[in-house]
Amino acid sequence: MHVLITGAAGMVGRKLAERLAREGSCAGRAISKLTLSDVVPASLPAELANRATIRVEDSGDAAVAKALAALRPDLIFHLAAIISGEAERDFDKGYRVNLDGMRNLLEAIRHEGGAAYAPKFVFTSSSGIFGAPFPPSISDEFHVTPLTSYGTQKAIGELLLADYSRRGFVDGVGIRFPSIVVRPGKPNASAGGFFSGIIREPLQGVEALLPVGDEVLFTHASPRSAVGFLIHAAGLSREELGTRVNLTMPGVCVTVGDQIEALRRIAGDKAVKLIRRAPDPASSAIVAGWPTRFDAKRALALGFTAERDFDEIIRVHIADDLGGHLPN
Amino acid sequence: MHVLITGAAGMVGRKLAERLAREGSCAGRAISKLTLSDVVPASLPAELANRATIRVEDSGDAAVAKALAALRPDLIFHLAAIISGEAERDFDKGYRVNLDGMRNLLEAIRHEGGAAYAPKFVFTSSSGIFGAPFPPSISDEFHVTPLTSYGTQKAIGELLLADYSRRGFVDGVGIRFPSIVVRPGKPNASAGGFFSGIIREPLQGVEALLPVGDEVLFTHASPRSAVGFLIHAAGLSREELGTRVNLTMPGVCVTVGDQIEALRRIAGDKAVKLIRRAPDPASSAIVAGWPTRFDAKRALALGFTAERDFDEIIRVHIADDLGGHLPN
Repeated sequence: MHVLITGAAGMVGRKLAERLAREGSCAGRAISKLTLSDVVPASLPAELANRATIRVEDSGDAAVAKALAALRPDLIFHLAAIISGEAERDFDKGYRVNLDGMRNLLEAIRHEGGAAYAPKFVFTSSSGIFGAPFPPSISDEFHVTPLTSYGTQKAIGELLLADYSRRGFVDGVGIRFPSIVVRPGKPNASAGGFFSGIIREPLQGVEALLPVGDEVLFTHASPRSAVGFLIHAAGLSREELGTRVNLTMPGVCVTVGDQIEALRRIAGDKAVKLIRRAPDPASSAIVAGWPTRFDAKRALALGFTAERDFDEIIRVHIADDLGGHLPN
Repeated sequence: MHVLITGAAGMVGRKLAERLAREGSCAGRAISKLTLSDVVPASLPAELANRATIRVEDSGDAAVAKALAALRPDLIFHLAAIISGEAERDFDKGYRVNLDGMRNLLEAIRHEGGAAYAPKFVFTSSSGIFGAPFPPSISDEFHVTPLTSYGTQKAIGELLLADYSRRGFVDGVGIRFPSIVVRPGKPNASAGGFFSGIIREPLQGVEALLPVGDEVLFTHASPRSAVGFLIHAAGLSREELGTRVNLTMPGVCVTVGDQIEALRRIAGDKAVKLIRRAPDPASSAIVAGWPTRFDAKRALALGFTAERDFDEIIRVHIADDLGGHLPN
């Protein structure tokens, strides 16, 4: 089986490629070829190095999308996207990458073969498709009213995916990620970056700023779970999915205060003391428009799993990104 | 005020232009100029003939959209669309007219002036954005999972409208029409055409075929109400609408059997005898995927009104399309 990952140099794309390489198969089929596409070079996973191709390109460009479809991958993970903050700052770029990029890829696949070529297409959507006001828990039947351009673009991607799937051009499934923490690496400027930062930095002995109150509620899953969602999605049949192919993923719904107590249990008071409260009304206002809690009943019934509690999310970070032990 | 109607030669567009011409104002402002755009020539409403311009063009074409935005209309009714059956038969045409047409017009407006030019933009959406399975009554917070390409294109139009409104490029409101009956004129081949046909034809002494069972439940409003929805929408402020700018309209929820009894009350057994039952499993299957009943709570709270019962819908047809009396 030939697997294509767009956005393969991103954090989730990299971890997905590594896991596919480690396992050598996906959805019960051996991987004979792996194509990693991104605007910057993805890294080559060692185990599949001789069967992997790195492509540096904009997968959302119509000509590039055509070239990728011509490779006729059996399974496509479409992760390429501009993140929320950038899509909000640069209106044209957000629509070009997140909307036109998705549509160009779907169109290229349709023109490549119609029913004769209809690959499995796993699309990463986001809980950002939802917009306040919210009920206490968001059901699988709650409507989609995004309050960002990013959320709008992802919601449109979901609609296109469902229609192209219904028409038989792709065999699609859309995966709405919750907040993915703990993100490894450097702090970034995204509005929700602190959810990772207040864990990641203290574990490294570094101070982290907390711009919102301890009562803020949010749903999280680890990067390992994010990869697990994508791989599990690739194995779902059309029959299991039915016509509603876009699914809200499960996660761990906790307050910032709960996150901090989990950190204390795992790394002690010393770590918690490195969290500095720096209330920022602007950040608080943004976060207040984000969804808090999901039922995710359909995803759970279809076998998707996330961590049980936030302690486990921290332990996954230590295992996967810190070599299995706390830095001294 | 300069008013632009796209799709002005269609049934609702024509009735909208006639009413605006008759009243000479909309949303409390006098109409100084009326531009009627369609791919076929719209008819000139007598009262505004010297202030109206007929344009024959494809308003969804990017260059035409640019030319229309350059006219800087204060109020735009965007009605131009390919209907459901055609969008399903011709995938490319449906996306080009219903999706690209909407986006091109919004983009042309954005580039025309940004915050300095942000017209009121009334978009006709459809209850076709919803897809089965349904609860007994569809709330304003029910999710959008269309089962046709037309419904997908309208749902995407709604998302774009909300994002362009949030950004301040337009002052948008999307109106989800229920079934609009009684449509005047000749029978058409649309899957829901019989909802009008079983009233319109018998009133003219002509036989009408009924392809579905009497128990089929559906929500209807008259063409007069459809025009009323659009005009009422034009008068709503951003503050009244909030961020959720797309609204499900109210209507009369009745079974086909109820429709027939209303016809009997108004035109007697003679008319009802002209309805010939011709069960068609294909039509029944299509209609089974369509939404039946709506709460429409937000629209009702915002002052939108439809008919009280189906008798009234028939009387509106007789008044508006048959010169006020039954043909002999």
